Amino acid sequence: MARVIVDVMLKPEILDPQGQAIARALPRLGFSGVAAVRQGKRFEVELDGPADEAALSDVRKMAETLLANTVIEDYAVRVEP
Amino acid sequence: MARVIVDVMLKPEILDPQGQAIARALPRLGFSGVAAVRQGKRFEVELDGPADEAALSDVRKMAETLLANTVIEDYAVRVEP
Repeated sequence: MARVIVDVMLKPEILDPQGQAIARALPRLGFSGVAAVRQGKRFEVELDGPADEAALSDVRKMAETLLANTVIEDYAVRVEP
Repeated sequence: MARVIVDVMLKPEILDPQGQAIARALPRLGFSGVAAVRQGKRFEVELDGPADEAALSDVRKMAETLLANTVIEDYAVRVEP
């Protein structure tokens, strides 16, 4: 069993109203020193077998077809150590 | 400027219907070999200054009060290298 992490974030040029709302709320809550916040998704994918190159290639295909909307989102796949 | 990542995931004992829906959709889409999927949130926090211990302590407080619901979610704070 291996665990693969897929991080999905809006592309930098896409407006992120959720992140902006958080960034604007922080000073009201007493936090300073934050320039920006962006919010995305994190998926933990538990594989039956090892995280070899074939399995990672499958996870990248999953990210493209199901987990991320590649028109507006970027994704990154990595094996959790 | 430093970037700090806050990962927020449902606690292991909390049911994750979104992750389950993804895991169930995978075989239909031709993917096998996935035992489970869990979905969470990822926040990228851009700091004005360096990610020193005081700043990280502030980000942990943000996670507790704003980014995570600690009744049902765990969070992890780390500096992006």
